[in-house]
Amino acid sequence: MEFTVKDVAAFLDGVVEGDGSIKVSNISKIDQGVPGTLSFLSNPAYSKYIYNTLASAVIVNKDFQPEGPMNCTLIRVENSYASLARLLNLYEKSKPVKRGIEQPSYISSTAKTGENLYLGAFAYISDKAVIGNNVRIYPQVYIGDNVVVGENTILYSGVKIYADCRIGANCIIHSGAVIGSDGFGFAPTSDGTYSKIAQIGNVIIEDFVEIGANTTVDCATMGSTLIRKGVKLDNLIQIAHNVEVGENTVMASQAGISGSVKIGRNCMIGGQVGIAGHITIGDEVKLGDQSGVMTSIPDKSVMIGSPVMEHRAWMKSSAIFRNLSQLRNDVIQLQKLAKQQDKE
Amino acid sequence: MEFTVKDVAAFLDGVVEGDGSIKVSNISKIDQGVPGTLSFLSNPAYSKYIYNTLASAVIVNKDFQPEGPMNCTLIRVENSYASLARLLNLYEKSKPVKRGIEQPSYISSTAKTGENLYLGAFAYISDKAVIGNNVRIYPQVYIGDNVVVGENTILYSGVKIYADCRIGANCIIHSGAVIGSDGFGFAPTSDGTYSKIAQIGNVIIEDFVEIGANTTVDCATMGSTLIRKGVKLDNLIQIAHNVEVGENTVMASQAGISGSVKIGRNCMIGGQVGIAGHITIGDEVKLGDQSGVMTSIPDKSVMIGSPVMEHRAWMKSSAIFRNLSQLRNDVIQLQKLAKQQDKE
Amino acid sequence: MEFTVKDVAAFLDGVVEGDGSIKVSNISKIDQGVPGTLSFLSNPAYSKYIYNTLASAVIVNKDFQPEGPMNCTLIRVENSYASLARLLNLYEKSKPVKRGIEQPSYISSTAKTGENLYLGAFAYISDKAVIGNNVRIYPQVYIGDNVVVGENTILYSGVKIYADCRIGANCIIHSGAVIGSDGFGFAPTSDGTYSKIAQIGNVIIEDFVEIGANTTVDCATMGSTLIRKGVKLDNLIQIAHNVEVGENTVMASQAGISGSVKIGRNCMIGGQVGIAGHITIGDEVKLGDQSGVMTSIPDKSVMIGSPVMEHRAWMKSSAIFRNLSQLRNDVIQLQKLAKQQDKE
Repeated sequence: MEFTVKDVAAFLDGVVEGDGSIKVSNISKIDQGVPGTLSFLSNPAYSKYIYNTLASAVIVNKDFQPEGPMNCTLIRVENSYASLARLLNLYEKSKPVKRGIEQPSYISSTAKTGENLYLGAFAYISDKAVIGNNVRIYPQVYIGDNVVVGENTILYSGVKIYADCRIGANCIIHSGAVIGSDGFGFAPTSDGTYSKIAQIGNVIIEDFVEIGANTTVDCATMGSTLIRKGVKLDNLIQIAHNVEVGENTVMASQAGISGSVKIGRNCMIGGQVGIAGHITIGDEVKLGDQSGVMTSIPDKSVMIGSPVMEHRAWMKSSAIFRNLSQLRNDVIQLQKLAKQQDKE
Repeated sequence: MEFTVKDVAAFLDGVVEGDGSIKVSNISKIDQGVPGTLSFLSNPAYSKYIYNTLASAVIVNKDFQPEGPMNCTLIRVENSYASLARLLNLYEKSKPVKRGIEQPSYISSTAKTGENLYLGAFAYISDKAVIGNNVRIYPQVYIGDNVVVGENTILYSGVKIYADCRIGANCIIHSGAVIGSDGFGFAPTSDGTYSKIAQIGNVIIEDFVEIGANTTVDCATMGSTLIRKGVKLDNLIQIAHNVEVGENTVMASQAGISGSVKIGRNCMIGGQVGIAGHITIGDEVKLGDQSGVMTSIPDKSVMIGSPVMEHRAWMKSSAIFRNLSQLRNDVIQLQKLAKQQDKE
Repeated sequence: MEFTVKDVAAFLDGVVEGDGSIKVSNISKIDQGVPGTLSFLSNPAYSKYIYNTLASAVIVNKDFQPEGPMNCTLIRVENSYASLARLLNLYEKSKPVKRGIEQPSYISSTAKTGENLYLGAFAYISDKAVIGNNVRIYPQVYIGDNVVVGENTILYSGVKIYADCRIGANCIIHSGAVIGSDGFGFAPTSDGTYSKIAQIGNVIIEDFVEIGANTTVDCATMGSTLIRKGVKLDNLIQIAHNVEVGENTVMASQAGISGSVKIGRNCMIGGQVGIAGHITIGDEVKLGDQSGVMTSIPDKSVMIGSPVMEHRAWMKSSAIFRNLSQLRNDVIQLQKLAKQQDKE
């Protein structure tokens, strides 16, 4: 598809500055701009690229002040990032959507599937599973006994969902994610071996949740591991048994949440963060990358470090740590001085 | 299934306190208790929930002393956690077990399979593989050439086992786990590229091992990567080439063990721990979450931190780190004082 | 296959010391040597094993000086490690290579496949995909729409490649790796929920790249996530959207690279390293295990720690941290002394 810059500006309620008749057919990053594409500028760190970009047009915030000549047409909008998101989503929606049931695939005779299903080849729907309308199940997905999948949800190739789990509507689960694997529960015995504690609970994922590639969410020992409405989990995250993640909490890649942790709503959990078992994280908490959390944390805390501490204190302590040998040398100097004075 | 509390108590060699004729049909967590369910109290931190739980009956330790009125029937037992484990396992065993060979699936004409097999659709058994009796292989599992799988082992959907690996009896491997992928071995060349070193060894997993979802165990360069009897690995763990993990060692999620590390028996390795290559971890070692281990560690050590140190010393150092700017200010104050004295 | 030690030495341009007529049929580690096998000594830490190894012959560097009697024949070569690599590769190449198309598998009528293909059962090739000559695609692999796979590349069982990605020639991708899953991009909205930003870019993997088991590489928001020629990624690594990894850079297990990071060529990234978004890592940079990187790093830096610092400074600071309570006690002692002097 090809549009004039003028048409794009009209769609975005934007104002054209320059030649509005130029045609664009794709979207590019401003530092990798290509003629015939539309780019955007939102992060000020990238402003320097606008003066040399090869993109034909660039979407900018309406108050953008150029500091030199440019070769591109501008589209001034209220919020360039939001405008970009609208265009990307438009582009995405223009792609054909897969529908129909490919063969060979496997649907148990006791499973129920909704209208407008896409079921890829080699996908498997087990006994008594219930699949909503407009669901897309890519090849090689596994859906266990009694699983429920809500409408409009997309399960990409190779997703595995164990028996009894419930997936909400409008969710997206990426390839290789595992939902409902056994919690890590073992009882030590007197001879040093461990005996397995059966994990009879499930996972409940509410609506509008996105789960990244190869992320794992264990079932509860009893009851449910809960991923609330609007949660977004990145790739390679571990959610252990009986965890609850509150509404709209987002979690970056490789975070690990231990058993029975309760995380509040609208939190931001950084990459590679680890949270120890049985503690509570309040609402709107922000945890920096690689944080290690060993005790409960109140609402709205902004913390980092391992073990975590208040963010500004961590900045100071880390700066001193960098020159810790200087601090020690200062102390040794003072000790020498004291000794000398003692002699005098 | 439904049981009276009296029947459950008899099964557990427990004593009923309250109405033993009440019926229960499921197990619940005490803080999420529901009428008609049986709950339990083991962790003292959860004692407060027993006074308001809606669970019909609660299993407690025989010396439990209530501190207020309760609405539930009690079952007093020797060890409430062990009793719970027995009940959960009973519940689990009451579920129907999958058996038979679903179609389409793939079994090489040179493979051997035992009695009572469950083979899910789209599962693949390659040339000369040998599968023991009562093995359950869920859909979309891959079993490479010459692989041996011992009896009663369960491979959940999507497990991948490379050629030549050996899996013991009574093992459980969860979805997405990869056994026998190439070790990370490359030789630098003079032009800055790397040439691959063929990884011709295998993985040997002994009996009663459980391996978590999306965990990876690389094959040895030569010889075998060894996971000893009774080892329990959580999700998303990395075990590199030629590692040996000793009997009954348990490892929490996202731990990473580098090449040729030898870990002793009955160790407890925390989540997100990293262990550098070619070192030895003794028996009964405990490593706290997020530890980083760069040198060998003797038997029975209890360590944490990155780099690891003795646990109590780490607690002290971490507490001081939290106020490191205070320590520096104290030193600056002393320096000023010394300067002043010098002038006087 | 069986060879005389003399034949092996000739192949390696080596010199036999001892009985060259002995026959060997496999390769073993020196500390696990078995009669009838050939072992090697490269890492000096393993020298002690040569005096008792049961291996029939051992490849050593030409300047190796034994410190005691040995039972094995020696083969002296220029570089024992390189010689080992040659032998392992020879052994690997002697194994039969899978070819042909197994059934059931799925090839879209609009896909193109090259000569000499291996396509395992339950593998899936989607619309308009283009597969080069001599490619091996193991069972249960998924290849999305428009994907290009270069010649001689191997995709092990369960690899998932999303639409529009391009994989170079002579690559190896291990089981469970996911290429092209959506980048983690969400725009916060005024009601606290997040709206998804469509990820319309792809992943480009150049030639001679190896990607480990269960590693994830997200597609770009726009444009391409780039894995340059000769890059080697270990298992369970996260590469976020719009990252670029430079030629011949190697990365150990469980490293995580955030969005839009640019990594130079010939870097060595340690295990469990985390790199924050939108920064640049120069060429030939070495980052120690578990490093946390929050700002850009110049060429040839050798760094470690979280946040990272120069390697030697980190060694010193870490050593002091280990006894931080001693340092504090010294300061307290000085304070007491000062107070006392003040009184006097």
